[in-house]
This record gives sequence, C-alpha cells and structure tokens, in this order.
Amino acid sequence: MTESALDVFEMHPYLWGNPATPGELPAAAEELLSALGAVPPPPPVDINDTVLPASTLPEAAQAAIASVVGADNVSSSHDARVHHTRGFSTPDLLKLRSGDASDAPDAVVFPANHDEIVAVLKACSEHRIAVVPFSGGTSVVGGLAATREGFAGVVALDPRRLDQLVSIDAESRTAVLQTGLRGSKAEALLNERGYTLGHFPQSYEGATIGGYAAARSAGQSSGGYGRFDEMVESLTLATPRGTMSLGTAPMSGAGPDLRQLVLGSEGAFGVITSVTVKVHPKPVSRVFEGWRFPDFTQGAAAMRALVQDGPLPTVLRLSDEAETYVNLADPGAAGAGGAAGCLMITGYEGTEDETTLMRAGVTKLLLGLGAESLGEEPGEKWRVGRYRAPYLRDQLLDIGGLVETLETATFWSNIDTLKAAVTEALTSALGADGQTLVLCHISHVYDAGASLYFTVLTKADPDPLAQWGRAKAAANAAIRGAGATITHHHGVGTDHRETYAQEIGPLAVDVLKAVKASLDPAGILNPGILVR
Amino acid sequence: MTESALDVFEMHPYLWGNPATPGELPAAAEELLSALGAVPPPPPVDINDTVLPASTLPEAAQAAIASVVGADNVSSSHDARVHHTRGFSTPDLLKLRSGDASDAPDAVVFPANHDEIVAVLKACSEHRIAVVPFSGGTSVVGGLAATREGFAGVVALDPRRLDQLVSIDAESRTAVLQTGLRGSKAEALLNERGYTLGHFPQSYEGATIGGYAAARSAGQSSGGYGRFDEMVESLTLATPRGTMSLGTAPMSGAGPDLRQLVLGSEGAFGVITSVTVKVHPKPVSRVFEGWRFPDFTQGAAAMRALVQDGPLPTVLRLSDEAETYVNLADPGAAGAGGAAGCLMITGYEGTEDETTLMRAGVTKLLLGLGAESLGEEPGEKWRVGRYRAPYLRDQLLDIGGLVETLETATFWSNIDTLKAAVTEALTSALGADGQTLVLCHISHVYDAGASLYFTVLTKADPDPLAQWGRAKAAANAAIRGAGATITHHHGVGTDHRETYAQEIGPLAVDVLKAVKASLDPAGILNPGILVR
Repeated sequence: MTESALDVFEMHPYLWGNPATPGELPAAAEELLSALGAVPPPPPVDINDTVLPASTLPEAAQAAIASVVGADNVSSSHDARVHHTRGFSTPDLLKLRSGDASDAPDAVVFPANHDEIVAVLKACSEHRIAVVPFSGGTSVVGGLAATREGFAGVVALDPRRLDQLVSIDAESRTAVLQTGLRGSKAEALLNERGYTLGHFPQSYEGATIGGYAAARSAGQSSGGYGRFDEMVESLTLATPRGTMSLGTAPMSGAGPDLRQLVLGSEGAFGVITSVTVKVHPKPVSRVFEGWRFPDFTQGAAAMRALVQDGPLPTVLRLSDEAETYVNLADPGAAGAGGAAGCLMITGYEGTEDETTLMRAGVTKLLLGLGAESLGEEPGEKWRVGRYRAPYLRDQLLDIGGLVETLETATFWSNIDTLKAAVTEALTSALGADGQTLVLCHISHVYDAGASLYFTVLTKADPDPLAQWGRAKAAANAAIRGAGATITHHHGVGTDHRETYAQEIGPLAVDVLKAVKASLDPAGILNPGILVR
Repeated sequence: MTESALDVFEMHPYLWGNPATPGELPAAAEELLSALGAVPPPPPVDINDTVLPASTLPEAAQAAIASVVGADNVSSSHDARVHHTRGFSTPDLLKLRSGDASDAPDAVVFPANHDEIVAVLKACSEHRIAVVPFSGGTSVVGGLAATREGFAGVVALDPRRLDQLVSIDAESRTAVLQTGLRGSKAEALLNERGYTLGHFPQSYEGATIGGYAAARSAGQSSGGYGRFDEMVESLTLATPRGTMSLGTAPMSGAGPDLRQLVLGSEGAFGVITSVTVKVHPKPVSRVFEGWRFPDFTQGAAAMRALVQDGPLPTVLRLSDEAETYVNLADPGAAGAGGAAGCLMITGYEGTEDETTLMRAGVTKLLLGLGAESLGEEPGEKWRVGRYRAPYLRDQLLDIGGLVETLETATFWSNIDTLKAAVTEALTSALGADGQTLVLCHISHVYDAGASLYFTVLTKADPDPLAQWGRAKAAANAAIRGAGATITHHHGVGTDHRETYAQEIGPLAVDVLKAVKASLDPAGILNPGILVR
C-alpha cells in the first residue's frame, strides 16, 4: 500500500466514521435503553485479536495479481484483511464485534489505474478468484461479503490509489473523478477550483465516488443537486473482458441508456473506474431553517407541493412525530422547540439571489400549508451535525441497544400505507408497547413520490443477529407487500437480494444474469451480490 | 381491424401527417430549387398500384396468430401491408414513391391487449415469424424494416387498439397510458381531465406512446417537461417469455435502472404495452416569444446560461444563421424581423405566476447576453406552425428537391466543433458553394450539453437514394469523429446501427445482444434493428 493511499483517515472495521471523532451518546438515549432493561453485551473483540480464516489464495493466483500491480500492492496482512471484511450494517458490526471474520478476503489488491484493474480482473478470471470491489467499505446491505463457493479464493479490490480529480470542463460544467476518491476529498478538490459536486450522503466521510455510482447513492442535498445517478454523465467500466465507456452525450436517443445499467450494478458487472459528473459553482449563500408541522401527513403534503409545483429547496427533510420527539429529547436540539408535531428542515444554496428567491417561495408555500417557522437555529444545527447520527450506533450497541436503519421509496399516494406497514412489521417483530422505537423521515422527494427512511431502536436480545434477522425479514416483506421498492439508496447487496428478485420479477433477474455473463463470463465479480 | 382503431386519421404511407392538411410550399423554396436546376422526378407511384412481394407467412403461423387475436384482427390486405411498410425517412419515402415495397410485412396483427401481445410473440417465436412493433410508423431511421433473413415470415404488430388512458393518480401526478395511444390523443384525453403530458415532438400527430418510449422521444417542450424517457415512472413490457413490469418507485437504489434498458430498445427486447408517466396540471398561462442574437455562438451561450443557472423556459430553441435566414425567406415569418443573426424562441407555460416569474428571469438574462426582443409574434407563429415543417418535405420531393433531417447531441464544449464537422461533411458530400443548404438548430438543452438538429436541402440527383446515402454516411462519420452521439431522439433503427456500435463499443453491443437473447430467445423481435 503506497503512502498516497493513506492521506485520508482509515475507518475502523466496526466503528463508524472518523476514529478521531467518536459519537457522544445523549443521556436520554442511555436512560431509555436502561428503562427498557437493556444489558450491555460482552465488550467487542479487539480487531487485533480477531481470528482470520486461513487464506485459500493459490500462490499462482497471488503471483499473477502481483505481476500486474506489484508485490507491494497485494497485501495479506491481518490489518488489511480485517479492514476489508464486510461493511457497516448492524449485522456486519455484530459479527465483527463478536470476532467473526469468516468473510475476510484472502488478500487485498491496490491497483494503480484502470488498466491494472482490467488486468487484475482478467488474472482473477483465469485463476477463479472472486473479486470484491471494496472502496469506502460503507455498504449497509451486505454488499461486500461475496460467496466463496466455486472459487479458489477471494480478494478485495481497493481502488484507493485512483483518487484524482482528473479534469474539469468549465463550459460543460463537468468533472472527471476517479473511483477511489472519497466523497469528502472529491468535494474538497472541487471546492478548491470553485465548484461543488453537491453530493452529501451520510457516508460522506468514508464512501467513494465509485461506491456512489455502483450503489446509486442519494445525498442530503438531492433536492438541489439530484441523486448521484442523476449526476453521472459518463463512466468507464473495467470488466474481465476489457473496457466499456458509456455516455457520449448528456442525453441520447441511441438505444437503451446503458449508463443506468451500470449504475447500481454493485460491482457485479465490473469496476467503475471513473465518472464524469455534473458540477456546480460553489454556493456563496447558504441558509438552513426549521419548520414545525402539526403532523406527518400535513408535512408530507407540503413536501409534495414543493416538489410538484416548486420551488424545491436544496435540502428538504421531514421527521415524523417519533423522530421529532427523539430529536427533541437530545438537549442539543432544543432549538427545535418544545411542542409536538413534526420537524421539517429546508436548506437553500446558491447565489444570494437564488437563495433569497427560493426561500421566499418556499416560505410562502409552507406557511400556507400549516407550517410554523422555527427559524435558522434548528436548520443550522441539523447541518452541522448531519453526519453524526450513525456514530451513535456504536455507543448504543455498547450498552445493549439494537439499532439499525432501513429505507424504501414509493409513489405519493402510497406513502401513508407504506409507512404504517413497515412500522407495524418492525414493532410486531421487535416488541410493541414502547419496547421498540421506530423513527421515520422523508429526505428525498420526486414529482411522483418520496423515500421513507426508518431508524429502529430496541434492546438487544442475547442473540441480536437472529433478532434483527426476524425484524429485517418482516420489514422486507412489508415493503414488498406495499408494492414499494426494497431500497431507495442503500442498495441490494445480499440482504435485499431475494426481495429485489421478487420486486423486479424473474425475467428481469434473467436479464441481469445475462448481462453479468456477458461482461464477467467467469462470474468472479462480487459473486452473490445483487443476484444469486 | 376494429372500428375503434380508426378514430384518428390514418397517415398516408409516404405523405407526412394528416392527409386533410397537406403542406404549402413557400414560393421562395420553389425559386431556390429552380435556381439550383432541380428537375421534378417522375410522379410517385400511387399506393394502390404498389406491387407487394408475395406473402411468405405460413398458413400455420397465420392460424396461430389468428387463434390469439381473432381472424378479423390479422390482415394481409394490400392496404394494411402498404400502410405498414417502413417509416418516414427520406429514403423510406423515395423507395415507396418509386413503388419499392419490398419491406412490406406479410400481414398486420391488431392485438386487443397486453396478454394477446405476449401470446402473439410466443406464437411467432414458435413459428419463426419476425415481428415488427409498428405503432405510429413515424420512424425516420429505418426502425421498421426488419430483416427477413432466417424467418419464415414477417408481421407488423400494430397496437392501435391499446389506446386508453387507463387511470390517473392525482396525488402522485401520474397517468397510465396504453402503448397505441397517439400522442395527440393522449394529450387530448389528459386535457379533458385537467392535465397535460407536455410531450410535443414533431411527430405528435402520428406517433404513439409506445413509440415515444421505445425510441426515447424528445418533445419541443423538453425544457419544461423533460424528455419522454424522463417522464416514464413505470412500464410494462410484453416479451416472448412473458411480462416484465418495471418501476416500483419513482427512483430506487435497487440495482440498475432497468426502465432505462427498455426505453430506447426500439422493439428489439419486447413490446412496451403501457407506461406510467408524469403528468402536470394543464397550464393556464402560455407565452411564446422571439429573440434575435447576433450569431449562433452567442445564442448558444445564452441557452447554456439558462439551463445551467436558470430559469429554464418551457420551450427553448435557437436557429442558426442559415435556418434563421430561410425562415425569414418565408413570407409568413416576417415578424421575425429583417436583419441577420439568429432567431431564438422561448416559451413559458404554467400558472400565471409561474410564467410571469420565468419570463422575467429569462428576459433579464437574455437581454444581458446580447439578445434583442422580437416580441410575441414570432413566438406565437412558431407555436402555431410547429408541426408543419415536415409536411413540406413531400412538396420539395415533388419538385426535385432532396431534403432530410438528422440530429445529434454533445457536451457544450464540443458544440461548435460538432456543428462545423457535420456541416462540412454534408456540404462536401452534396455540393458546396450554395448547392446545399444546411440549416441547424438547438432545441433541447441539458446542464452539460445540447442537441443539434440539421435540415439539409439540395437538388436531387437522378439517384437520390445513393446521393443521400453518401451524405448520411459522411454525416455519421463526422458525428462519430467529433465524439458525439449518433442520435439525440430519432433512434438507431438500421440507419444508425453501425455507427451506434462504434459509439458504444463491442462490449456494450454484446450486452445488448445478451439482453435480447434472454428476453427474445428466438430473436423474432424487430430483427436487425438496434444491433445486428
């Protein structure tokens, strides 16, 4: 691993985010879990003490890979292997905390460029080595635990050395970004040149450009800048059969939009090595504010009015009554006011004129639809703390909590039904009557519908993996039963694979398999992810 | 064919549009062609006198199809076969005018619903009958002339009986439209309910919803309502293997966006039988206006500013100097003023507030970027006559002209290079020094780029098919050479197939073939279209 690869912090294998800034659990959360009778589990196994399975990587395969990337850029060290074991779903954390590293790759490969990635994929095809494209490692859907079945070994392919802002086309307002660039670093590099990408998912500190593309990431400013799949103009894919370059023009009538076949393919069709994305002038004006709605239904109706008739703020999110209440329980969020109801955050970015105009339009509409303005303080509070929520999971697990998130999307006319069905499924599985907190928010809106994001907190059973497995299965079934999509932006991975197959149907699954067989005849790419 | 199938006018096989309203050629055009020495060709062969090839459809196949749709809904009549022969490219017209109906299908099938289409495709798979999905019949890229090679016969599948507005979801602002509904009828049905689809391609009078979807249509109001592929939320595809339903939610992170694999598939993967599309409240306010820019480069820069920084008008188009000059030569377009330069049209649709706000913002920006306002008259003139231009082709062919259009798209930084390259290729192939008029406009803009639409007029050679063939090959090569896409909204068909293969590369061609083989194992669907 080269020095240049380490110029951003390394995430801990089972603790979220920047190790320098761990979460700080509000006292209210501790009290709540204590009241539920939560019992702290045994302390997690130190990652240095994690027992790794013996590597099965044949020497010839290791040599073939080393001949492409150089021996220094293939590592079978304990540290490299543990750091590339699974992602960040709660089950992933529970397993690694308990010392289960059975999904560790045999080795980690650090290629230097696109051509090396193609060559590594060819070598691995010849040697029957499964390849897990592992960039930020922030998957929360089991997207990084490839099956070993039928393979001589498994390697993680870490593209962190492909971390350049390659070029900017000022006239077309596009930038070429390499796959291994972390979101936060890409944004910093663009900011230096006067631009923003405008992509701020909660995994912003850890996830990479390639991961955004491969998993159809959606960021908190999707109202203003769109989803990542809407930002991509062109992309380059490394496959075992060579290179596929897509996106000759911003929009084309030339056949299917194959960019949209690669986006969301989760490493199963190839490794996205670079993307050309839309960029925007770095905003000079930025305002965030809070609003209170009497209830979720009225708040959601206001969001629908904003997206369907405009103006749509850069950031728009609405917490339901439960999520609003829990936020209020956080002493730091006191600015949100003490009353019941639902908290909405609106954010405006752009030129002074743009934010002024947008804010005036939004304000007029929201006040007319039953909102009460809470001023800028809760908005700014949200903005400053917006990457911090996932940090708390580690502390909650430490004290015997079981906490996880899941999300979905549907058409506006189905939002209430879907929300009720998922809430009911989770509380039925984990315990109703105050035993389980199910919080929900909408943070991505479209003309025709919106996402629903759920956070679930309960006390952990003695077997929290099985406990969550039951809850997740119930939630998946509820989502499918309500006719919604199994994921709005977390991806399919292995956790959603079977429900995804039901969602798209057997012909579509066959299409995906046919595409995979065409680009990856040996089936080495992230096997078991997306489709079986 | 049922009566209900005929409630819109039937297009003539080689005369564009509504037969009740033929084109009226401006005297200036006649004078121009006369000055070029154009000689009227022999009068076209009457369609009743067109000699059709003998049908090769085996009786067993005909019976199998009839058993699905009923004998009354399979027609081998002269009229039905001629009416389903090819599309509306100039080569298509030249062939049929000369009596060449060699691409006529053996029969035309009029299924009643989705299930019948699936059953017809299964029957045709069993009997090795190629199926050409033929809805509006307005393809201008050879998208309706399937190869007979390897098949026992060819049928056209005309879904005109699937012509219903199925439902409207007022909350989600979506409508379910059947495939055979003409664009103009869909709009009328939606207008009755207080909505608009906002899709107004030049083929609006003839093309159908299914055709829009299958060929990624772009309409003149794309600034306000988007391209058709952006309007589609969900779709249902009939394939020989059964049904594929896609689009569970407006946006999803569940794998690739397979809707975008079906959109643009031009009947090669299946028959799109219905779509759920975004709809909008029918605008109560509508203003169109004209602007003059000193030159194309300044006009294009202004368009770029509008799309990148807003506000983007509902309609935005810019004619280059040549197209502006020819429009001025039309006495009916005198309102555009007598000076040189480039004509821009802007259109605003929405509520009174929306159009007022949009217009004010656009006006401020355009005046600041060198535009001179020409008032509403040229805008309204364009709006009223906007479907009329293609009608003139028939009259121009009658008097010895050769006229055709082609289009492409690229990134903003490449627009000037692309425009020069295509213009040079066309004039080199067809005659420079005033022998060939190459007109160009931009009518679709995106953050990162725009379309270029070319109209070419010259005098016809004794062999105009070969003449245009050379020009088209030169244009295709110029587009590819400039790194642009071979089509922005006309599609691939057969005419762009080889250049398209170069554009997407061999791996992507293999992917398309793999998808086709998965959904259409017998390869009966529009064989030879899209990929070889």
